[in-house]
Amino acid sequence: MTTQFSFSFRIYIEDTDAGGIVYHANHIKYLERTRTEWLRTLGLAHYSVQDEFNLVVYALDIQYHKPILMNDLIEVTADLIQVKAASFTVKQQIWRDDQLLATAQVTIACVSKSLQARALPAVLKTALLTQLPAQDRTSLT
Amino acid sequence: MTTQFSFSFRIYIEDTDAGGIVYHANHIKYLERTRTEWLRTLGLAHYSVQDEFNLVVYALDIQYHKPILMNDLIEVTADLIQVKAASFTVKQQIWRDDQLLATAQVTIACVSKSLQARALPAVLKTALLTQLPAQDRTSLT
Amino acid sequence: MTTQFSFSFRIYIEDTDAGGIVYHANHIKYLERTRTEWLRTLGLAHYSVQDEFNLVVYALDIQYHKPILMNDLIEVTADLIQVKAASFTVKQQIWRDDQLLATAQVTIACVSKSLQARALPAVLKTALLTQLPAQDRTSLT
Amino acid sequence: MTTQFSFSFRIYIEDTDAGGIVYHANHIKYLERTRTEWLRTLGLAHYSVQDEFNLVVYALDIQYHKPILMNDLIEVTADLIQVKAASFTVKQQIWRDDQLLATAQVTIACVSKSLQARALPAVLKTALLTQLPAQDRTSLT
Repeated sequence: MTTQFSFSFRIYIEDTDAGGIVYHANHIKYLERTRTEWLRTLGLAHYSVQDEFNLVVYALDIQYHKPILMNDLIEVTADLIQVKAASFTVKQQIWRDDQLLATAQVTIACVSKSLQARALPAVLKTALLTQLPAQDRTSLT
Repeated sequence: MTTQFSFSFRIYIEDTDAGGIVYHANHIKYLERTRTEWLRTLGLAHYSVQDEFNLVVYALDIQYHKPILMNDLIEVTADLIQVKAASFTVKQQIWRDDQLLATAQVTIACVSKSLQARALPAVLKTALLTQLPAQDRTSLT
Repeated sequence: MTTQFSFSFRIYIEDTDAGGIVYHANHIKYLERTRTEWLRTLGLAHYSVQDEFNLVVYALDIQYHKPILMNDLIEVTADLIQVKAASFTVKQQIWRDDQLLATAQVTIACVSKSLQARALPAVLKTALLTQLPAQDRTSLT
Repeated sequence: MTTQFSFSFRIYIEDTDAGGIVYHANHIKYLERTRTEWLRTLGLAHYSVQDEFNLVVYALDIQYHKPILMNDLIEVTADLIQVKAASFTVKQQIWRDDQLLATAQVTIACVSKSLQARALPAVLKTALLTQLPAQDRTSLT
């Protein structure tokens, strides 16, 4: 069973560079826009002025397969693959029609307001576990 | 007497767009980098995690004369032209060697932590007034 | 008669700064995203790998009325107010629900591939004139 | 023998997000600014309007250890670790004083003007090989 989420949006001139293609740091923004929309569907604010916790990117690994071009309408996926005590990992892909443009794996850590690592709060952990395939849900305990 | 400040830095690929020139929103960043460095020379933090006040751009007017190109080493000026009770206005220019690339006028307002307009704090007002030509220093009173 | 165009989109963490609000240079990107979508409805590519001409921002005047916040769903308008031989001017506003957040006026110039000013090509001029109120359409001639 | 290059620059408000720290996509820009300056010292233009070839990021792996903050003066290193027929790999670190903030590995591929993979041109390969430790210079052949 997959619980993959996807989100589509347009590429503008602001996203490109003088090479005529999307600047490679902007892919990182697209991955996050999509995780934000995915978390929103789970009733979670990705970033917020919260007292309790914040989420920060801890590790990111991306392969650029083909360039993204101006005016492209791209689709970005988010697929939760692991939940740990203080972090979770999402596999993401960027597509234009049936062409895979980039593949990434992003690990998000939970930190306190003072930016210290802390355990995922219950509300976040519970919501994330519903997104994992059933056989993987015990991985956290 | 002029108290004009200038700051130089390099243009990178991140600053350009598919037109092969610097994307026009990035000029706005360059103006601010320069104001930040100018305020630093006055002993003031342009942005800070302060309890008392924050500075926000209130109005901005820019003319783009010539394109900025990748690898350009540009010089950006800042020249304080007016101080009012709750805001101040800076005239700025962007140069490459002896070519004027852009001219702007930026008005900065002072706001409270809750983003309400407030008077310039004394430390800021005093420092700014030292940057105005002598004949203009009474404009605030 | 108004021919005003509007375009809505979401604000993400990538758009904000440490002041907790949208960084003021990003408003400039939102104005352009909206002009790009407006020109698309006229059958025109705002930016393209064209042999004939390119469009560049020539002057921009913006007033920031209220901050834009993370997760805001904003609406940006574009209203053509003048067409000249080698440029055109658009009035734009940024709204969140019934709150006006920013007002801008942007003049776009037409340039050749070598970035020299040139007259608006016929296809662009004709399309733009259909967007002007009838009584203003002779302004160009 | 190490041939590590390092480049220092300041962090501005434009680099931060509403979490009060540098937005994680901006680290990717800092890595590239540094590679651009490193290649400049080798007499090579990182990006250029060349007829012959272009360089694009092919893979990137980054670990975020500690947040970068506004006003930080950071130092970014670049250390060439591998040269292959059509790509090369650089290990990079981001430091603030003696604190390691991020570690990355970036693989750059060479492409033709039409964005097809191609062998590194001789001028680039020769310059890069001078940057590899002597015992590694045969890795390409």
